[in-house]
Amino acid sequence: MTPTVQLTCDLISRRSVTPEDAGCMQLMLERLEKIGFKTEHLRFGDTDNFWSVRGEEGPLFAFAGHTDVVPTGPEENWKIPPFEPQIVDGMLYGRGAADMKGSLAAMVVACEEFVAAHPDHKGRIALLITSDEEGPAKHGTVKVVEWLEQRNEKIDWCLVGEPSSTALAGDVIKNGRRGSLGLELTVFGIQGHVAYPHLAENPVHKLAPALAELAGEEWDQGNDFFPATSFQVSNINGGTGATNVIPGEVKVVCNWRFSTENTAEELESRARAIFDKHGLKYDANFNLSGQPFLTAAGPLVESAQAAIRKVTGRETQLSTAGGTSDGRFIAPTGAQVVELGPVNATIHKVDECVKAEDLDLVKDMYREVLRGLLA
Amino acid sequence: MTPTVQLTCDLISRRSVTPEDAGCMQLMLERLEKIGFKTEHLRFGDTDNFWSVRGEEGPLFAFAGHTDVVPTGPEENWKIPPFEPQIVDGMLYGRGAADMKGSLAAMVVACEEFVAAHPDHKGRIALLITSDEEGPAKHGTVKVVEWLEQRNEKIDWCLVGEPSSTALAGDVIKNGRRGSLGLELTVFGIQGHVAYPHLAENPVHKLAPALAELAGEEWDQGNDFFPATSFQVSNINGGTGATNVIPGEVKVVCNWRFSTENTAEELESRARAIFDKHGLKYDANFNLSGQPFLTAAGPLVESAQAAIRKVTGRETQLSTAGGTSDGRFIAPTGAQVVELGPVNATIHKVDECVKAEDLDLVKDMYREVLRGLLA
Ligand SMILES: [Zn+2]
Ligand SMILES: [Zn+2]
Repeated sequence: MTPTVQLTCDLISRRSVTPEDAGCMQLMLERLEKIGFKTEHLRFGDTDNFWSVRGEEGPLFAFAGHTDVVPTGPEENWKIPPFEPQIVDGMLYGRGAADMKGSLAAMVVACEEFVAAHPDHKGRIALLITSDEEGPAKHGTVKVVEWLEQRNEKIDWCLVGEPSSTALAGDVIKNGRRGSLGLELTVFGIQGHVAYPHLAENPVHKLAPALAELAGEEWDQGNDFFPATSFQVSNINGGTGATNVIPGEVKVVCNWRFSTENTAEELESRARAIFDKHGLKYDANFNLSGQPFLTAAGPLVESAQAAIRKVTGRETQLSTAGGTSDGRFIAPTGAQVVELGPVNATIHKVDECVKAEDLDLVKDMYREVLRGLLA
Repeated sequence: MTPTVQLTCDLISRRSVTPEDAGCMQLMLERLEKIGFKTEHLRFGDTDNFWSVRGEEGPLFAFAGHTDVVPTGPEENWKIPPFEPQIVDGMLYGRGAADMKGSLAAMVVACEEFVAAHPDHKGRIALLITSDEEGPAKHGTVKVVEWLEQRNEKIDWCLVGEPSSTALAGDVIKNGRRGSLGLELTVFGIQGHVAYPHLAENPVHKLAPALAELAGEEWDQGNDFFPATSFQVSNINGGTGATNVIPGEVKVVCNWRFSTENTAEELESRARAIFDKHGLKYDANFNLSGQPFLTAAGPLVESAQAAIRKVTGRETQLSTAGGTSDGRFIAPTGAQVVELGPVNATIHKVDECVKAEDLDLVKDMYREVLRGLLA
């Protein structure tokens, strides 16, 4: 086993289901501090976080990641116990193998190799690690970023270790993410008996044409970096269960994933205009869970592209698709942000796994990024 | 207390929540058999029913009714215990006072008075009584009607004792009811993550325009006896509860109350045409719970109108509004059917009550109907 694979296994063995860290951070910090990193332990609420830096001044490069993993579901559904990592036919199995303990191990070993070759590197290297990324994400990266801002510390380049690759290590990096705007909508009517509809007002009937319009709306056409903004209903519930009662209200939960061609304010005002046009009596609770962000070009993207080309010979693809990540908290500070990590095909699933040798490719890419920016 | 009010109280004291009869039928039959009625006890499933007749041949008049009552809800919410009837300020309180133990008592006493005055009346008088009207109605009147058909017994005139009056006893009689057609609709899509909408198909989005069209449809314009057919959604449910998952299916429960200008087959085929037009992948389970029926005119309606005029001086109003009743099972046999009973303002509610003296007015109306048809 290579050092990267060995450290990945050691991390997987720790049952760090959100918000537990289960000793993962300690394992990383022992190695980092040996090569000159200085650590701040930052506990917020129920969540352990750390910020560890090597170097005194100059441009600040940070790896960002999380030690927590999503629950396993029934462990008997796994072909290997999810916290007892094993390599079978070249694939390393275990919860967190791809998301993202392999990336954490790659960060640590990449730092070791880079520091050994460049003990007096330029600028500063940091790791920003949380154990609350897969959960509510209230006490993790968002709080560490606030803490950094209070100290006037600004990250210039941030590489988030999320598994960005789709088929081969390094084939895709994320250089931005869509925004995410949630909505909990309650439409009010007047409850009554189906036999006396003139005494009632059916909120489902009022909602239906408004919902048809929302579902059919073109919110924007996207741009070179983003697909068009998408609207989706996730939940709809109305009715007492009785078949002869007109419900008094209906609740809808929905979500926009939006491009940089739009804003949360604009989407909210267009949605409200549709509700008003259809005469709804409603209560709307909009919740912005992430602004869209984009690192269109610059030294970080170029270093990542060059590193992938050097390690794998591949031309990587820039993408902003997929769910949110902690990059949404870091990008608004002005940092350039990319996400680069192993293949994400099995994340959050039973039998999560990653090609063992890809972890060393990822480690090599990380080291080459450091070399490109700080050698 | 008059005999009618006394018998009503005796019936209310019996806790006959559907499908329990709790001895109500026995109380009625003791009285009826004393004046020459002959009884068939008909137990179907969990339900007691009886058919009791006086007379050997000729036209057949039947009172129809039910001894069962709906649940009381928390008894502490009642101002009097619901099974301990009391008269307060002229109102008789108790579960079933209006729906329909008052009517049952009025039927028995009306028969006693009519038979005393006309011991050799024309034709036959019957009572068709069930204890499963308020529940699923699978083992009640519908089964007694089947049993009568097997014996080639045909009811000519049927007076259902449901509380038809709205403000004053006898102000409204029901000479028909709308049909009731239920639908359980499941619309299928493809479940997925809201961040990857191109891999999913949102069934709520597919449903919305079809639902808007159903809700806006004019199914017919009604006629002289019926209001226009009405469509109502009673329940809609889709989604996993998670805010980031596009649901795989959405379920809708809805109901038509339809006039004699329409049929269940016609409504179903128009609904399916709308589903198909919007390209829904769906499963639709239609359930006809009652055909519409109408007794437009004839000796029964005329006798009821004359009886109300004689007892109260009022011109009654014919109506087909409101929910279904067991009349839906009797009318299809070719019988003329009307519903006549006390004021229905408090039925199925806490503190159900009826004006005590109205019960004797109802009893007098019933007796006059008998006289009009069979004296
Ligand atoms: Zn992750
Ligand atoms: Zn009733």
